[in-house]
Amino acid sequence: MEGVAIIGAGQTPYGDFPGKGVKELFAEAYFEMLKSIDKGTEPQRIQTAYIGSLSAGSGFQLGQLAPLLMGHVGLPRATATRVENACASGGYALYNAAIAVASGKFDLVLAAGVEKMRDVSSSKGRYWLGVSGDTEYERLAGSTFAGIYALMAARYMHDYGLKREHLSMVAVKNHRNAVANPKAQFRREITLEQALKGAPVAHPFNVWDCSPTSDGAAAVLFCNAKIAKEFTDKPVYLKGFGAASDYLAIHDRDSITSLAATRKASAEAYSQAGISPREIDFAEVHDCFTIAEIMAYGDLGFCEPGQGFKLLEEGTTLPEGKLPVNVSGGLKAKGHPIGATGCGQACEIFKQLRGEAQEPGRQIKNARYALSHNVGGSGGTAAVFIYQRGDQ
Amino acid sequence: MEGVAIIGAGQTPYGDFPGKGVKELFAEAYFEMLKSIDKGTEPQRIQTAYIGSLSAGSGFQLGQLAPLLMGHVGLPRATATRVENACASGGYALYNAAIAVASGKFDLVLAAGVEKMRDVSSSKGRYWLGVSGDTEYERLAGSTFAGIYALMAARYMHDYGLKREHLSMVAVKNHRNAVANPKAQFRREITLEQALKGAPVAHPFNVWDCSPTSDGAAAVLFCNAKIAKEFTDKPVYLKGFGAASDYLAIHDRDSITSLAATRKASAEAYSQAGISPREIDFAEVHDCFTIAEIMAYGDLGFCEPGQGFKLLEEGTTLPEGKLPVNVSGGLKAKGHPIGATGCGQACEIFKQLRGEAQEPGRQIKNARYALSHNVGGSGGTAAVFIYQRGDQ
Repeated sequence: MEGVAIIGAGQTPYGDFPGKGVKELFAEAYFEMLKSIDKGTEPQRIQTAYIGSLSAGSGFQLGQLAPLLMGHVGLPRATATRVENACASGGYALYNAAIAVASGKFDLVLAAGVEKMRDVSSSKGRYWLGVSGDTEYERLAGSTFAGIYALMAARYMHDYGLKREHLSMVAVKNHRNAVANPKAQFRREITLEQALKGAPVAHPFNVWDCSPTSDGAAAVLFCNAKIAKEFTDKPVYLKGFGAASDYLAIHDRDSITSLAATRKASAEAYSQAGISPREIDFAEVHDCFTIAEIMAYGDLGFCEPGQGFKLLEEGTTLPEGKLPVNVSGGLKAKGHPIGATGCGQACEIFKQLRGEAQEPGRQIKNARYALSHNVGGSGGTAAVFIYQRGDQ
Repeated sequence: MEGVAIIGAGQTPYGDFPGKGVKELFAEAYFEMLKSIDKGTEPQRIQTAYIGSLSAGSGFQLGQLAPLLMGHVGLPRATATRVENACASGGYALYNAAIAVASGKFDLVLAAGVEKMRDVSSSKGRYWLGVSGDTEYERLAGSTFAGIYALMAARYMHDYGLKREHLSMVAVKNHRNAVANPKAQFRREITLEQALKGAPVAHPFNVWDCSPTSDGAAAVLFCNAKIAKEFTDKPVYLKGFGAASDYLAIHDRDSITSLAATRKASAEAYSQAGISPREIDFAEVHDCFTIAEIMAYGDLGFCEPGQGFKLLEEGTTLPEGKLPVNVSGGLKAKGHPIGATGCGQACEIFKQLRGEAQEPGRQIKNARYALSHNVGGSGGTAAVFIYQRGDQ
């Protein structure tokens, strides 16, 4: 396999953008990505693109989205594939772009994602997001993703002694982190008291346990590692990438306090990278609901199974801790524009590993390895990536 | 890049199956594929899957389809990615599965496609198929794919002297070919007189110029060429694969009597295979409308540009001709279950190159190279594959 590097990354802010369509959002991320390539490139050298989006062709009714978007930014002839794996659509765009570079068939491969949830979240009373759960056994029985993750949280409490406060500690941390991030949707702190007393959603969750409805796009340019220095002196290397699936319906799974898809995907990524979880300096993980971040700590090997909340108690995952998690604000406060989310995590890590998170207090220092983690639905799919700083 | 082989292929019949859901159709194709592997395999060895489907999560409302289907056939943990590029979704499942094997990361990779058009074709007055054209400039102005391809046919007539009869000759040939194919939707011959006098659809097309609404699924198992003989003494090798895009809106294109995406995709495939169009022994091409097959002849290099109809006059593409095209019956008469179509073409070629098209009169003799060609929408995407018989 060829080595894989990242030479450029860009993203829109996440939020609510009534005046921008899917094409505009994609173009904004794409051109910011192009600008980030230190020594520049001829865009025509981009040979193929993977674009993640959940609701293309359904909610927002622009089908065959991948060539449509590539045509819009002036690359109508590049090969383009839309990938869709629910909330992990962006992660699978990254994953398949990495494979395309690894194959040796392509030198420059675009991974991108876009979503405009404002236009699709409840159109015609259908829940486009909801179809990504198991329709026959969960959705048609009335459950939502908030309800399914709430079951996981309740079971985690029962099995391991997780407290309601621990969930809120995730929300408080990620909101605090988002304040300094110019791309984040919710740039305001919340107190633990506030986080404990939000409007109820699905017991034990209140509104502060849930990631928001977001519009946004993100774009990452992958490159054969051999030629990365043609484009920048500070490439970021993708040292490992893994992806795995599980049953959609949680009643079919081995456990509901852990995601098997994440465990398998991360094992694959660590093994390829040749490093252990201890060597990760910071991570962006999939906190669609607060419990998801706590489960991810265990599934990614940052702690023993079921002990995720102890990292919160110890402050390990705060920006000043040993293993900062979601310094961007995470899905909770940076935002969650479904198809873009996985690519946006890679944008944050690209910036951080290059020392370019210039806003006061945001830059993580002396990091060598970082990890990103993107989940589809309630764990039907997951993708994990390990990045290495390249200027050392 | 690692070499790519095909060791198994299976598909459902195409047609109208009110009693079968998407899961059942997929399972039927998958298990037929497994059975076709001469020396068998442990299904758990299938590491990753690419599944093409247009209307998953929208029309038929089963989102995150790839892991859902893999779980249904007993492979819940395999990596799985849904790909969607309109009517070329199956072709891009093949294309990305080939890249995954070529990367060396995987030994066994599934490419599959499934669609149940019965459930989606006009639900709630929305045209799920229609969203794959350019929504802003074509669909919302009232055009359909029949209308767009009709424009192409009219222009081809004007520029090159194509006659209405030539269009019908495609329909007559492909219906005749479908008679012997047990997987085909329309197993009946039509006469040239009938084909000329169908109910009007969009001038110059009548109903016999249009492929049908179909349900169906197809599955193909790719394998690293180095280990193919572990599974069969008769692998089929994938010698070349190419894919490319174009603007969705035909007003943006260089020509409307030729698809640039097909030309670029086939150039890539021929170059990788190291052969010329003259060496192709038979082909399955994308005849969603009769003009599409005629345009494909030129775009794939089987004749000079604009001269496609001469191959029909000369009988070159009849089963008894020098270069049989759509011996399966093609989209026109075998059927067109959108996401499955590209994979179903590969199934036909796998059978033919192994000498297993046993039905009387169906087997093409002494073939060495075959080609398949799958188009998305009116040419927004295209994928082309070149196969070589492996037992020689």
